[in-house]
Amino acid sequence: MHFDKPVPVTTIAQLIGAEIFGNVNGIATGINEIHKVENGDLVFVDHPKYYAKCINSDATFIIINKQTDCPEGKALLVVDDPFEAYLKIVNFYRPFEPSMKMFSDTSSVGEGTVIMPGAYVGNYVSIGKDCIIHPNVTILDHCVIGDSVVIQAGTVIGSDAFYYNKKTNRDIHYKRMNSSGRVLIENAVEIGANCTIDRGVSHDTIIGAGTKLDNLIHIGHDTVIGKNCLFAAQVGIAGATTIEDNVILWGQVGVNKTLTIGKDAIVYAQSGVKDSIAGGKVYFGSPVEEAREKMKEFVWVKRIPQLWNKLMEKE
Amino acid sequence: MHFDKPVPVTTIAQLIGAEIFGNVNGIATGINEIHKVENGDLVFVDHPKYYAKCINSDATFIIINKQTDCPEGKALLVVDDPFEAYLKIVNFYRPFEPSMKMFSDTSSVGEGTVIMPGAYVGNYVSIGKDCIIHPNVTILDHCVIGDSVVIQAGTVIGSDAFYYNKKTNRDIHYKRMNSSGRVLIENAVEIGANCTIDRGVSHDTIIGAGTKLDNLIHIGHDTVIGKNCLFAAQVGIAGATTIEDNVILWGQVGVNKTLTIGKDAIVYAQSGVKDSIAGGKVYFGSPVEEAREKMKEFVWVKRIPQLWNKLMEKE
Amino acid sequence: MHFDKPVPVTTIAQLIGAEIFGNVNGIATGINEIHKVENGDLVFVDHPKYYAKCINSDATFIIINKQTDCPEGKALLVVDDPFEAYLKIVNFYRPFEPSMKMFSDTSSVGEGTVIMPGAYVGNYVSIGKDCIIHPNVTILDHCVIGDSVVIQAGTVIGSDAFYYNKKTNRDIHYKRMNSSGRVLIENAVEIGANCTIDRGVSHDTIIGAGTKLDNLIHIGHDTVIGKNCLFAAQVGIAGATTIEDNVILWGQVGVNKTLTIGKDAIVYAQSGVKDSIAGGKVYFGSPVEEAREKMKEFVWVKRIPQLWNKLMEKE
Repeated sequence: MHFDKPVPVTTIAQLIGAEIFGNVNGIATGINEIHKVENGDLVFVDHPKYYAKCINSDATFIIINKQTDCPEGKALLVVDDPFEAYLKIVNFYRPFEPSMKMFSDTSSVGEGTVIMPGAYVGNYVSIGKDCIIHPNVTILDHCVIGDSVVIQAGTVIGSDAFYYNKKTNRDIHYKRMNSSGRVLIENAVEIGANCTIDRGVSHDTIIGAGTKLDNLIHIGHDTVIGKNCLFAAQVGIAGATTIEDNVILWGQVGVNKTLTIGKDAIVYAQSGVKDSIAGGKVYFGSPVEEAREKMKEFVWVKRIPQLWNKLMEKE
Repeated sequence: MHFDKPVPVTTIAQLIGAEIFGNVNGIATGINEIHKVENGDLVFVDHPKYYAKCINSDATFIIINKQTDCPEGKALLVVDDPFEAYLKIVNFYRPFEPSMKMFSDTSSVGEGTVIMPGAYVGNYVSIGKDCIIHPNVTILDHCVIGDSVVIQAGTVIGSDAFYYNKKTNRDIHYKRMNSSGRVLIENAVEIGANCTIDRGVSHDTIIGAGTKLDNLIHIGHDTVIGKNCLFAAQVGIAGATTIEDNVILWGQVGVNKTLTIGKDAIVYAQSGVKDSIAGGKVYFGSPVEEAREKMKEFVWVKRIPQLWNKLMEKE
Repeated sequence: MHFDKPVPVTTIAQLIGAEIFGNVNGIATGINEIHKVENGDLVFVDHPKYYAKCINSDATFIIINKQTDCPEGKALLVVDDPFEAYLKIVNFYRPFEPSMKMFSDTSSVGEGTVIMPGAYVGNYVSIGKDCIIHPNVTILDHCVIGDSVVIQAGTVIGSDAFYYNKKTNRDIHYKRMNSSGRVLIENAVEIGANCTIDRGVSHDTIIGAGTKLDNLIHIGHDTVIGKNCLFAAQVGIAGATTIEDNVILWGQVGVNKTLTIGKDAIVYAQSGVKDSIAGGKVYFGSPVEEAREKMKEFVWVKRIPQLWNKLMEKE
């Protein structure tokens, strides 16, 4: 998330009760989760295993639970519970203030766009020109929708991420990491009925221009999808994954988190993509392999009885 | 289903035109399907194969299509078509009287709870404190929702069970067994967007405290889910299944009906749980095996060509 | 799609700027995609590979990008871009004119039917007697719903087909083929919550009498489902497929496009039906095989280590 305007790091420190070390004159421009940090960002870390990674990331301000060395120009904000400090900042700069109207006064819509009955458009949403938003669609706060976008009935844009911090010392083990990111839908994207597109936890979930989604598809938080992709019905994609241009996923494919599917890849129905796969190839299986390898495997499996018989003959 | 107040079994007998044998002075406290019966309940049975099971279950009053022996203190209600008699009782004591308002006057909501536009709350629903009910959610009659519960946009709580009685002697083969049960959602449960949680057929579908569900998840009727479980997107769970505490199901996992998944079990993405599985282990595959066994199997399958070649060398 | 009244082919030719060859006095009764053409229909073809198939189909009027031979009584309408001509006809005779009311004045509903709050019913929809349309359902233009039909909350009937024409010479590769077909739901059909039933591209998607669908099911465009079928939750069926009477699909089954599943077939959970399968049998796997063959295969795979050991003994 970018702040609406830059914030002195001393203001942040005061908000979360942190001691600052390093560049106390810094100006923070936003806050992000470690997978997505940019220069000027705040980030948080609460486990020594990840200290170095966070301190040496693109982030400028590190909310941390122990004072340690810090590169020139950066600052550490030391608190007891960095996760709670992160939530405090998100809740302060992007509070949950639900609009109680079906179309919020703070949102805008371009010429030629039709918003049908029962559709809900929350706060600070921008919708471009010549879009069709079908009945009973829900578009939540801060989402940005381009021109000539179609969103079919019942779809939800900007649901909160499925992203929890585990606290096993409590009765309730999981505490939600509040989502402060957005969904950005580029021009000429078309999304089917009853899909769910989660907002980014701290960054943006992006659907590239010209990409078409069928019905009942789930897109996780912070996932970035390229241009002119085609996803068939009931595809599910976990969080923070990258899918490059022109990728085709057939029905009920599942894709794991934080991986990359290369440009022009095709994945056959019901496959499971567990790790990154290269572009320009055709895949099948759960977990996926190249489709022609998987097909050969099917043939080999059918030969096991023959193998057995040959061996028995020898005995 | 528990009756609002206890009902003399003679009143029930009159309603359904039954002859009573046994304890004619009994008082019925509710009616349940055989999987879920309690003491004081009515139950029905129409096939001799299940007579003994029903008569010796915890139920006190058995609606049956043939007079037979009956334990002390229980009663038989003999009718020609026990299933139709069951429907008549359910329709009489829990009639479908849809509220035509977005928020029914017969429902209640706790302090600090936000119900967003487009959300429907039916009759006799109880919602606790500090909940967020997002836009276009549907909560149907008699459901009970605890405190600090989040239900994201488009989700349906209390849809009717997918549960039919087969009548092959008719043009239309399947007759719905009307759902009289409820959905109980305990404190701090969070449910993603466009999920569907079916009510119990005669008992309750329960989601335990602290459990978190991602988007597009289906939970079948009478399923009981423990505390602090995590289910990723597009998981589907059939009816009357028990899932113990802290179970983690990854994306697109399918779970069969009337089985048990033990405490702390983890099931990897796209797996299919066909039979009960023990707690504390990690599973994969469709049907599932322990994940490390399944991984070994993958390695063995890849060795078939090598096996073939070795055998060919010998020939 | 059938036109509201028959249209002289000369009127069509004028609308799309076509030169007519053959029967210039013909009267067109409708327009269809090649999979579904009937006598009196217009059809389009833009690739020489399919010229003969289209010209010799049941269609009477062929929109084509090259003059060629044409059987007696038929006519060719020659244009540069047959796909654009097709879209022009569909947009003219079935324009998208969204109703901005929750229940359109042009739609009708039978006696005893309950339409609950938040449900949207578009233009020219016909709903029969004694139906229950639950909250937040969306029923789009031209759909036809029989008697005693139940549609549970959040379900979308008549979403547009996922059907695109590829134009690789443009920045945006895919152009939607506008859907002009309908969804026909016969008597006593029951559909669960948050399902999506796409309309036909040019013909009808049909759900046969007495068929019951669980939650979160996707039915693709132009799919024809027989009577008394049962589909469990999260089943997905691609476009233009035929499913005969009494077919049972268990949870999360995926079915490919343009195939046939024969009468009385049963397909176990999570299976993938890639090609047509005969009726009266039980199937499992992805891709499916007869279930008992698949079960044998599982046993054989488990024997590979034993095979290996036997072979090693011989060495």
